[in-house]
Amino acid sequence: MDLDLLTQEILKGSVRAIGKGITLIESRRPEHAEQAAKLLDRLLPHSGRSLRVGITGVPGVGKSTFIESFGRHLTSLGHKVAVLAVDPSSQITGGSILGDKTRMEELSRDPNAFIRPSPAGDTLGGVARRTRETMLLCEAAGYDVAIVETVGVGQSETAVASMVDFFMLLQLATAGDELQGIKKGVMELADAVVINKADIDRSKTDLAKSQYITALHILRPRSRNWSVPVLTVSALKNEGMEEVRTMLMNFREAMEKSGEFEDKRRSQSVDWMWSLLMDDLKSLFLNNKNVKGIFPQVQEAVSKGITTPSAASKRLLDAFRKY
Amino acid sequence: MDLDLLTQEILKGSVRAIGKGITLIESRRPEHAEQAAKLLDRLLPHSGRSLRVGITGVPGVGKSTFIESFGRHLTSLGHKVAVLAVDPSSQITGGSILGDKTRMEELSRDPNAFIRPSPAGDTLGGVARRTRETMLLCEAAGYDVAIVETVGVGQSETAVASMVDFFMLLQLATAGDELQGIKKGVMELADAVVINKADIDRSKTDLAKSQYITALHILRPRSRNWSVPVLTVSALKNEGMEEVRTMLMNFREAMEKSGEFEDKRRSQSVDWMWSLLMDDLKSLFLNNKNVKGIFPQVQEAVSKGITTPSAASKRLLDAFRKY
Repeated sequence: MDLDLLTQEILKGSVRAIGKGITLIESRRPEHAEQAAKLLDRLLPHSGRSLRVGITGVPGVGKSTFIESFGRHLTSLGHKVAVLAVDPSSQITGGSILGDKTRMEELSRDPNAFIRPSPAGDTLGGVARRTRETMLLCEAAGYDVAIVETVGVGQSETAVASMVDFFMLLQLATAGDELQGIKKGVMELADAVVINKADIDRSKTDLAKSQYITALHILRPRSRNWSVPVLTVSALKNEGMEEVRTMLMNFREAMEKSGEFEDKRRSQSVDWMWSLLMDDLKSLFLNNKNVKGIFPQVQEAVSKGITTPSAASKRLLDAFRKY
Repeated sequence: MDLDLLTQEILKGSVRAIGKGITLIESRRPEHAEQAAKLLDRLLPHSGRSLRVGITGVPGVGKSTFIESFGRHLTSLGHKVAVLAVDPSSQITGGSILGDKTRMEELSRDPNAFIRPSPAGDTLGGVARRTRETMLLCEAAGYDVAIVETVGVGQSETAVASMVDFFMLLQLATAGDELQGIKKGVMELADAVVINKADIDRSKTDLAKSQYITALHILRPRSRNWSVPVLTVSALKNEGMEEVRTMLMNFREAMEKSGEFEDKRRSQSVDWMWSLLMDDLKSLFLNNKNVKGIFPQVQEAVSKGITTPSAASKRLLDAFRKY
């Protein structure tokens, strides 16, 4: 494949070229991985100019309807929107979230929107890496809003939060037990809580809103320049979309003014490098012949309280260094 | 030093021997580290029989007064209480928390209490390791309640939560802005919120309590067998200490019945081993001659967006493997 040509076509925004590029990024063949790395190095200087928005919420909260409604609102204002996903459970099916484009029927036919299902992968790290790289490619191709959806399996919210500028928690307007469905730690990743289906029951919505405001009041805000707002919308009726957009614009302005926008992106890149490095180091370690030979019994001894974690760690590291 | 004799004396509960053992654990001399590891392997079968309680809270919340009051209540019922600390800011002063024993004047004179300031250390990992090992030693010496205090610098709450059975967040009975002083993530580590100084203003205390209950209702409980309670106490007036003790007993009973108590300890040990291993691997990597040579410019290139994190990680790992 001619990488120069592919780069040029992607920069022009050719959907066909974008598809080819993503195929390289998602491929497991080593020669493709090498080509993908070269392609990304060329595209990188042209990326970074979008607003990256992560969206999470339990199934049933209406994520697809929200993205359809919000995405359409954005394209109607002249934005180009890329919709990506991180779903580590998609390793078998090859992408369950967004896999069914009919879930976002209108947006998927919109020439200013690009929808890509979650890549498949053995690990969350692998899935997240591919989505992140696809996001960079879409930015280089001129998409100025990147929406990354996650269903919230395992640590996927953390992975998505670490690749976006803004992380949005979509919730239902039902108070009581269902509010507890928020996974540990997710509330503290959120830059905004958006209550969907607000039209169904106004009094429940108001109660839920005040509960979230209280909870967010107690949890420390993430930045001195941003207090986490609670918005109410009805994606089905296209209500509240302009408020969400205005909020995102306000966020971006506040963060750019304080310098946090750029700082966060820089530190996200460096953290990302470290997390890839540590994963690779861990594999190198676990695949080491000497380590493999003793690992199971050492771990067992620690678990049973026969050996201290320090002694075990030292023994394993000594085995690794002999190699 | 005769390790057999030292082991015997520690198992008998000799305070002098305990002090000698801790000196070995805290020492930075390699020969001491080796002796400490041997000592711990001998003591390990005798450890594990205490309830491990972590306590955090911002300065001014009354942690020392609480530990003094609660510790005295426990010793009056026949318990032996070890009070330890994790304070990574103590690297220069050699232990700021608990360093001033007069802060717990009565407890420090109690023959059934043992108070040890935070060890000094270059890193939180180092400080936490020494405290954890000291806790194991105290357990072998017959202390059946281990209280580990932290001031909550950096990630120290997470480190303490990962070494205890029960993690308690001490808060003030003041509503409003001061409630926001809770660090991100700490609320979700807590097995109980204890509001201190409840005697000062009853209506503020009640308001704070209801706010915490709402927040905890929204944050998902950590275990299906335990809902995080909010208690109100006055440590200065020794009020509420029996309620705290009863709560801890209820927690232990519920966790032991469901098997979670033992499961958590096993997984804490294995996690601990992994975290030590990864720290050591990281040092090995960063001290590698080839890695050192290129690391600064590679990290800079990632931070500036010139190179992708994947490409950078691959380059660094290739440098490491050549060695």
